[in-house]
Amino acid sequence: MTPGRMEAFSDGVLAILITIMVLELKTPHGTTMSALSPIFPALLTYVLSFIYLGIYWNNHHHMLHLTKRVTGGILWANLHLLFWLSLVPFITGWMGENHFAPLPTAAYGVVLLLAGVAYVILQALIIRDQGPGSPLAAAVGRDLKGKLSAALYAIAIPLAFAGHFLSQGIYVLVALLWLIPDRRIEAHLKS
Amino acid sequence: MTPGRMEAFSDGVLAILITIMVLELKTPHGTTMSALSPIFPALLTYVLSFIYLGIYWNNHHHMLHLTKRVTGGILWANLHLLFWLSLVPFITGWMGENHFAPLPTAAYGVVLLLAGVAYVILQALIIRDQGPGSPLAAAVGRDLKGKLSAALYAIAIPLAFAGHFLSQGIYVLVALLWLIPDRRIEAHLKS
Amino acid sequence: MTPGRMEAFSDGVLAILITIMVLELKTPHGTTMSALSPIFPALLTYVLSFIYLGIYWNNHHHMLHLTKRVTGGILWANLHLLFWLSLVPFITGWMGENHFAPLPTAAYGVVLLLAGVAYVILQALIIRDQGPGSPLAAAVGRDLKGKLSAALYAIAIPLAFAGHFLSQGIYVLVALLWLIPDRRIEAHLKS
Amino acid sequence: MTPGRMEAFSDGVLAILITIMVLELKTPHGTTMSALSPIFPALLTYVLSFIYLGIYWNNHHHMLHLTKRVTGGILWANLHLLFWLSLVPFITGWMGENHFAPLPTAAYGVVLLLAGVAYVILQALIIRDQGPGSPLAAAVGRDLKGKLSAALYAIAIPLAFAGHFLSQGIYVLVALLWLIPDRRIEAHLKS
Repeated sequence: MTPGRMEAFSDGVLAILITIMVLELKTPHGTTMSALSPIFPALLTYVLSFIYLGIYWNNHHHMLHLTKRVTGGILWANLHLLFWLSLVPFITGWMGENHFAPLPTAAYGVVLLLAGVAYVILQALIIRDQGPGSPLAAAVGRDLKGKLSAALYAIAIPLAFAGHFLSQGIYVLVALLWLIPDRRIEAHLKS
Repeated sequence: MTPGRMEAFSDGVLAILITIMVLELKTPHGTTMSALSPIFPALLTYVLSFIYLGIYWNNHHHMLHLTKRVTGGILWANLHLLFWLSLVPFITGWMGENHFAPLPTAAYGVVLLLAGVAYVILQALIIRDQGPGSPLAAAVGRDLKGKLSAALYAIAIPLAFAGHFLSQGIYVLVALLWLIPDRRIEAHLKS
Repeated sequence: MTPGRMEAFSDGVLAILITIMVLELKTPHGTTMSALSPIFPALLTYVLSFIYLGIYWNNHHHMLHLTKRVTGGILWANLHLLFWLSLVPFITGWMGENHFAPLPTAAYGVVLLLAGVAYVILQALIIRDQGPGSPLAAAVGRDLKGKLSAALYAIAIPLAFAGHFLSQGIYVLVALLWLIPDRRIEAHLKS
Repeated sequence: MTPGRMEAFSDGVLAILITIMVLELKTPHGTTMSALSPIFPALLTYVLSFIYLGIYWNNHHHMLHLTKRVTGGILWANLHLLFWLSLVPFITGWMGENHFAPLPTAAYGVVLLLAGVAYVILQALIIRDQGPGSPLAAAVGRDLKGKLSAALYAIAIPLAFAGHFLSQGIYVLVALLWLIPDRRIEAHLKS
């Protein structure tokens, strides 16, 4: 299997995930302003998850661009990442419908953390296959952003039970950290 | 990221959006003619949204055909456009189920207006990246059709509360304005 | 727009349609054999619609293989065809849930007839664009199978109110007529 | 039709199937730990089905890589395989919602068995078209793993009524058998 084939499949899954999330936005019952108000938390959560999936799509693309071949391990590490991302619409719906209640807010962080861990595993397998002198290893470096994100998720999960707005704030912060495409890899590609 | 990759992803999202809208058409309860009648407004709204998404798919394709490279800004402006388009099935379902009530009719216009604004932002970023002498800048020109559409949506939104059929009429009118593929770009491609 | 691009988009929509139909199969309430029995008509209808969409995908592919360029008219005729096909999951769900009641059975025939007409319009526009001596014109010939299918649908629609099993039988018959890939075009491709 | 085209369509359907399964995970009613607990069996079933679809995607890709041309029979055998796989989200939802009750557990095995049989039919048609000396025939050999899987499914189906955990264990066992990409074909590709 070529990296192009794996990327096309992943792109397909990500395009579907980013789109079917909208099916979690339930049509309001009624046509008044007050009928619309309960869907605002759902809409805000939808925006956040949309941005997260956009970030994954973008960074995943950059990473596969530097991947030369696909081993069995890489293929399953990629499916493992897609598995955790596939839970995003489900967890988005649960958090949005319940106006950011503590447990769904924590569960949202768990899914983000495990997707992040799956991404790091995939990255490590590709680097191990290519050897330490590979362009991807150089581009990723010590992966400070990845480690910081994981630490922030790990803080946000228990924090949801103390004050869920703190966790929400951390999720927004991590999204902002990644919103900009990975300059490290871009810089490497240019040089 | 190449324009081709971004276009393939956008095509995927648009193909899914145009198709999952049909899931908003709820199966009628019963097998009589009267059981079918409440779905006619939903069906009409579905037809209108199907045409709008078809127009976006077509014009988006023409625009990316004249795009040479994808910057981080262009990538996120494109995801921003897809975000507003992703709300089309949701807003279509709400307007259709409520027989064109004022608030859903106005909300439909808001989504169309913001999708239109997102399209203009994307177009402006591509032109800025290519410089004023680019083929796309020449093809778009003063973008009278784009400005007229935005003005018409802005009129239709408050009008929904006075008489929703007026707003509906404007939405149909704007769709007809764009139904024909953008002759400006086509003319430029031929010359 | 190239025929390849239009085909990729159509393939995407058809792949989604053939797959989301399964969402119309509602999970049975209960775990007994009797809980499963009401979904059998839905399952049978699903099989029939799956075969119809498979036939459209196959014949559409053969037709676009002989298409040299895409005009604005061809593009919208193609979207028109996709529109009617997009109603297949909806109408399949309605007929299947109501155990082949007369009105849903007739409505199923209406959607099949209009999809067939949309296919003939698309075919006619491609042939008109290519001229009478084109390979597609030669391959289609007098299109006896297309005309016969339309006539059979037209008979099956009113017949649903007399005896819905007769209409069902006709739908199965037309599917069998087309199940075999279009030998006329295949024969032409080989020569 | 080229094998590449058929593979792209199949990849699309598999990407959609693996993703829409998550729509069968119903948002929990409530925000307590006890509200979450009924979805654990659904989540476990989802993981199992996700792995099965990943295996099919991977092996299907390897098989089509060794396929030179697509006949009408191969095309319909492929759609036949996709049909059974399309029932996976439905049967996953039914088994997961009912905490592995006997009948849904048996039905899950029936769908897996018929998908396996459809895969073997597709494989046999491709080999017959290529002749006994083809690379695919050499790679598949006596297909011990395929025959063993079918036998295990056939045992698991009646066993669901005796003790459904036994059937579940067999489904997990067969998944583990296939989790590793088909070394036979990979070995052949390398030599």
